Amino acid sequence: MASPLRVTVWNEYRHELSDQRVAAIYPKGIHTTIAEALNERGGVQVRTATLDEPEHGLSEEVLNATDVLVWWGHMAHGEVRDEIVDRVQRAVLAGMGLIVLHSGHFSKIFQRLMGTTCNLKWREANDKERLWVVAPGHPIADGLGEYIEIENEEMYGEHFDIPAPETLVFVSWFTGGEVFRSGCCYSRGKGKIFYFRPGHETLPTYHHPDVQRVISNAVHWAAPIASATIIRGNTPPLEKEK
Amino acid sequence: MASPLRVTVWNEYRHELSDQRVAAIYPKGIHTTIAEALNERGGVQVRTATLDEPEHGLSEEVLNATDVLVWWGHMAHGEVRDEIVDRVQRAVLAGMGLIVLHSGHFSKIFQRLMGTTCNLKWREANDKERLWVVAPGHPIADGLGEYIEIENEEMYGEHFDIPAPETLVFVSWFTGGEVFRSGCCYSRGKGKIFYFRPGHETLPTYHHPDVQRVISNAVHWAAPIASATIIRGNTPPLEKEK
Amino acid sequence: MASPLRVTVWNEYRHELSDQRVAAIYPKGIHTTIAEALNERGGVQVRTATLDEPEHGLSEEVLNATDVLVWWGHMAHGEVRDEIVDRVQRAVLAGMGLIVLHSGHFSKIFQRLMGTTCNLKWREANDKERLWVVAPGHPIADGLGEYIEIENEEMYGEHFDIPAPETLVFVSWFTGGEVFRSGCCYSRGKGKIFYFRPGHETLPTYHHPDVQRVISNAVHWAAPIASATIIRGNTPPLEKEK
Amino acid sequence: MASPLRVTVWNEYRHELSDQRVAAIYPKGIHTTIAEALNERGGVQVRTATLDEPEHGLSEEVLNATDVLVWWGHMAHGEVRDEIVDRVQRAVLAGMGLIVLHSGHFSKIFQRLMGTTCNLKWREANDKERLWVVAPGHPIADGLGEYIEIENEEMYGEHFDIPAPETLVFVSWFTGGEVFRSGCCYSRGKGKIFYFRPGHETLPTYHHPDVQRVISNAVHWAAPIASATIIRGNTPPLEKEK
Repeated sequence: MASPLRVTVWNEYRHELSDQRVAAIYPKGIHTTIAEALNERGGVQVRTATLDEPEHGLSEEVLNATDVLVWWGHMAHGEVRDEIVDRVQRAVLAGMGLIVLHSGHFSKIFQRLMGTTCNLKWREANDKERLWVVAPGHPIADGLGEYIEIENEEMYGEHFDIPAPETLVFVSWFTGGEVFRSGCCYSRGKGKIFYFRPGHETLPTYHHPDVQRVISNAVHWAAPIASATIIRGNTPPLEKEK
Repeated sequence: MASPLRVTVWNEYRHELSDQRVAAIYPKGIHTTIAEALNERGGVQVRTATLDEPEHGLSEEVLNATDVLVWWGHMAHGEVRDEIVDRVQRAVLAGMGLIVLHSGHFSKIFQRLMGTTCNLKWREANDKERLWVVAPGHPIADGLGEYIEIENEEMYGEHFDIPAPETLVFVSWFTGGEVFRSGCCYSRGKGKIFYFRPGHETLPTYHHPDVQRVISNAVHWAAPIASATIIRGNTPPLEKEK
Repeated sequence: MASPLRVTVWNEYRHELSDQRVAAIYPKGIHTTIAEALNERGGVQVRTATLDEPEHGLSEEVLNATDVLVWWGHMAHGEVRDEIVDRVQRAVLAGMGLIVLHSGHFSKIFQRLMGTTCNLKWREANDKERLWVVAPGHPIADGLGEYIEIENEEMYGEHFDIPAPETLVFVSWFTGGEVFRSGCCYSRGKGKIFYFRPGHETLPTYHHPDVQRVISNAVHWAAPIASATIIRGNTPPLEKEK
Repeated sequence: MASPLRVTVWNEYRHELSDQRVAAIYPKGIHTTIAEALNERGGVQVRTATLDEPEHGLSEEVLNATDVLVWWGHMAHGEVRDEIVDRVQRAVLAGMGLIVLHSGHFSKIFQRLMGTTCNLKWREANDKERLWVVAPGHPIADGLGEYIEIENEEMYGEHFDIPAPETLVFVSWFTGGEVFRSGCCYSRGKGKIFYFRPGHETLPTYHHPDVQRVISNAVHWAAPIASATIIRGNTPPLEKEK
């Protein structure tokens, strides 16, 4: 595709404004760090949107101009209005890609699209995380080595209450003895969805080059395709009936 | 398992009471026909429940005593109360099996668990339907031949807006030129879900021995297993931290 | 990827030389028709190879310079030498894409990579084939409508003895009452594999614009990614042992 | 099924005869330990077979009387004759279940059915292994807790060169920093296959009650179903042609 992919990076953007530790790491917000990382890698036209903007920054106009939406949320999942969740779900089913990051596992939109609680184990103890590539030919693993190592991360552990991923790209090892399915591909309607685990707000995870690379790869993997309108409802036969 | 599987067959039970053609085929309701078919095949203890009973017949007590729930609904999906849908979803995630039949594709509970619209093409023209077995070793295909043939059925056609099934058991051919993924297995939480396409209310589909056999097979396939309580939330490490 | 994808189109190339009907449709061979179709759509650098060339045209040198291999064979599967099959398998596991067409279902390389007989039903009676898109967001369906219609084709019917596809893109309807999983994605090692059903040698299927489009889409979908060497065998620990 | 499942436990049976450490743990061979464990849990009729018996103990007669075959091999994979591998493959495709244990990942029969090298990382350093259940509703996890813990085991690490499992039941954590997909379900033809990782010959793994339980669960999960003969090859239409 010659034209750049239109990406919107959505962030709750609360921790950065209320917690000095987070602000020190992401002074312009997690969304800005991610947007800059995507821009550096090229092939995209990125905008950002945050919870406290009108319509959470996700108007019909914005979504219509979005090929792939990246989602980070944590403490304010409950404040995301249901009509915006409905709108994002409709956009995904119509083909918009969706990249859900870290604590976004508990977002309304991810739960809605999965049909499960998306609950898990967690621990804030700065475990080492090593994300092993288990699908080494997958475009989301492009350019990586055998694993991604993150020196300090929040632990997420199984059982992660999600539908079995259509493709499992990463499995994480944690110091404390847990594992996690940390890179999970889905399709819903015409849309592609990727869940990517790392990214605790008090840690510099989104400055990690391999983490940035995965998000960039995922955004390109989730690009919509050109496809004809699907016909549903009452339809006449294509062949002569009996 | 020595003890019989506890099955609840749920039916909207409206067409049978308002439409003479339907009543002629299912005089005691679709639920009763299915319940009798399950009983004949044995290994089960079956009860029924219908929309117009208190709590739609699906009290906490009933669900706690249900291993597998069979669901038929059509014209009154919107009347199923959301708190009952929440309750059934919780039961499925905790391990209860769910068999969704025919027009149940548009039920709130199926949409909830799939995360998609579950929309499709349809036509009431008494097409011939031939359901080809594409997973010939799967327990739901036990005892069948190469295909099930139904002389007259409502057509359902692709694209069916569901997540890709974890196992696709049947694909239907229709006279009018359409195909359909008509036997679809999923897991959500600890629960197993099977969608089975045939069963238009004006046709004697649920008297068809192979259709009965599939529903019986599916009920046994969807039986819950004994498994320990899953631990979620903040948890201490199992290994010494760094 | 700025540089063009290096595609090798392999053809048994026997029917065209021995059967006037086939020669009339594919005067320069099926491989040439496919190569031209790929070239027209761009982004590729295509060469061809045929059975009766030295090493079947698939020397180590050729495979090392091939990103994606397209395979058409039928009457002479048994003449493909086992060491060449070994070589192609190694190349796929190392990342080369493989597109297997029509009667290639019975090729040694496809059977080898599937682990099954890849047997099926067939009939040369010029059924109409309608390939329904069941994965409407998948890159291989890019630019298609709801289905591809081919007025005359050889019938292939279920049960098709393949592992369940990782993604099922197309399901075919045939006049005679059969269905077929006709677009099947797999990964093996670092390589991506796509099986695409249509293409009987006595029919002009590979001149059909939608068939050409699917092969072109599949070739781009199957492109290898850049990935680090995988380490296997006896390896020291990354963490301190107990 | 009222009648007991007919299980054959196959063992290479060489380490036990040549290595005192192994003989001390499995004095009658790994196969006998597993057979006894299956018998204790009931519902089966178990025989054993070993490499050095005529036809490796796997005559046509034995396979015809086997519902599920359990396979342990390691140092002598190359001595298993190809015609016996062919025979076992045919039996699996016809419906026989196959449970492949530990170092059986490199057996000819597993490689044949997978289509890949089945290569992996390994280390004999008595890592702790913790197998986390990631499919908590699956029959193979019946009766387990959240994980199985094995105090000392050989490490197997990713990337494991297998096709993506149709269902992933267990993921292992190892002390040394690796993870592994250690419980993998497949179907091939009418047969079901389960790969289960633990079981190094110098360690008492097959005396572990949870390991025994998983093998017992897997054997029952892999039971063949009754299904009609599949028709392949040239077949007449079921519907009137054009």
